[in-house]
Amino acid sequence: MLLVTFSTDGGPHRLGVQRESDVVDVGALAAARSAPDPGGLLDVVRQDAAGAVAALLDGPVPAAATHPLDAVALHAPLRPGKIVAVGLNYTEHVAESARALDTAQELPQRPVLFAKPATAVIGPEEAIEHNGHLTQQLDWECELAVVIGRTAKRVPAERALEHVFGYSVLNDISARDQRRGGLWFFSKGQDTYAPFGPALRTADEIPDPHALELSLKVNGEVRQKSSTKYMLFRIPELIADISAGITLEPGDVIATGTPAGVGAGRTPQVWLWPGDVVEATVERIGTLRNPVVDVR
Amino acid sequence: MLLVTFSTDGGPHRLGVQRESDVVDVGALAAARSAPDPGGLLDVVRQDAAGAVAALLDGPVPAAATHPLDAVALHAPLRPGKIVAVGLNYTEHVAESARALDTAQELPQRPVLFAKPATAVIGPEEAIEHNGHLTQQLDWECELAVVIGRTAKRVPAERALEHVFGYSVLNDISARDQRRGGLWFFSKGQDTYAPFGPALRTADEIPDPHALELSLKVNGEVRQKSSTKYMLFRIPELIADISAGITLEPGDVIATGTPAGVGAGRTPQVWLWPGDVVEATVERIGTLRNPVVDVR
Repeated sequence: MLLVTFSTDGGPHRLGVQRESDVVDVGALAAARSAPDPGGLLDVVRQDAAGAVAALLDGPVPAAATHPLDAVALHAPLRPGKIVAVGLNYTEHVAESARALDTAQELPQRPVLFAKPATAVIGPEEAIEHNGHLTQQLDWECELAVVIGRTAKRVPAERALEHVFGYSVLNDISARDQRRGGLWFFSKGQDTYAPFGPALRTADEIPDPHALELSLKVNGEVRQKSSTKYMLFRIPELIADISAGITLEPGDVIATGTPAGVGAGRTPQVWLWPGDVVEATVERIGTLRNPVVDVR
Repeated sequence: MLLVTFSTDGGPHRLGVQRESDVVDVGALAAARSAPDPGGLLDVVRQDAAGAVAALLDGPVPAAATHPLDAVALHAPLRPGKIVAVGLNYTEHVAESARALDTAQELPQRPVLFAKPATAVIGPEEAIEHNGHLTQQLDWECELAVVIGRTAKRVPAERALEHVFGYSVLNDISARDQRRGGLWFFSKGQDTYAPFGPALRTADEIPDPHALELSLKVNGEVRQKSSTKYMLFRIPELIADISAGITLEPGDVIATGTPAGVGAGRTPQVWLWPGDVVEATVERIGTLRNPVVDVR
């Protein structure tokens, strides 16, 4: 299933299942079937209730419980508890980052981890804030986002994927000139710096998360294009490594790192400016499109 | 008021007001007064309801709504949305850190920010986990914690303290040997690495948060002893700086940095080991005591 959080006509956020050309309103469908309402997407994750949602979809769905895809607004699938992000997790990005951003040239021996706060999350079509008082070096990073479904503490790699609810897209926006003392939190943690969505594909439909194309365009021009098969530390290793020390909870997100092609790595460097439009795409999930706006 | 989250006999967590030698059960007091229950401490913060709690305390408190202080267990005051922590925010700690931890010798020009996740929080008397598979360099850092009361986005320093609900103590535990690529998230973000408490003093009772003694003992021996007057970036500046880019929400915590005296800075270096007991104290708030236990 491709799960979404959507609204119509500025109404409340609701859980939906995105199909070819429409979105099923899961709450309305549950009502039509006299079944319990599974709540929002975060409730479904926390209650491990994807199966219950899928069961609701069995059989013909009344038209009254659907909306044409172009008649709904999509939002960030959920508000994560925490976002654990992985730096330098694609070989060529390690190289461009070493050239452009004074990070180490060697491949990391352990995952390089940092956090983005939940307050940074925005959904599709929401504006990435460009504050010229704080940055002249706003950059993009298209990433596969792993949404945790079951609490993970000291999980071995062999069992790690059992803890994944599904996958989405996260654009790890950075103000490169706001790294401080080598730390990335203010650089990467600002409001709107974590566009997330447009949808969440349940794990059962992505048997191999390391065979997904990912790409990013700025104003229609391709800037990143790679595949999740080139990750240095793969998802099971990441979950094992993180959960060795940090409990991952349902609704937490791992942003698995970005391939080469960030603005800092180009010659000359290219940055995001107000008026730009960024589109981050991961195969099987969708395209996360965000405009950049001036908020000085 | 000195607010606490407490339980008796392993029961549910409740909101309390700590007095000289007892704790008032605010829920029980509200019931006795036929007033609405203000909920837990996080509810009070979010609803900006310290005044309502104080009003309940007006007049004689029935003995049935109190517990002797030594008959209750105190817990972390609340689960923060996010913890924004400040590195290198006391002059002498900058120096010892440059000697011992390859950070810069110069005083930072802007606050050096990083995050600790809510999953790292433990309360008083809870165990700090020592996992010998992950670290041989477990260290302490006594810090004044600022608990945000009102949403702060782009708040000028002059108005910043209006957004503070109160103050507590946070012990910023680090596995110094788990810094990765210069980043501190795994080093400082592990479960139990954010002892927090034992109580929260409302801001009205701390008119000057830069005149508080803070100290830390390991096994009864003083390791840190300083005053919040030596902070490089003071709380109004920190709130202004962070909120210029990152929205601070009610219940978020700023850990304002630690003075000199960490284990890494000693010659020879001293680390925490299973069996140790750490006590972090901030004047007017209390002592946060945690044992270190082996969890290999």
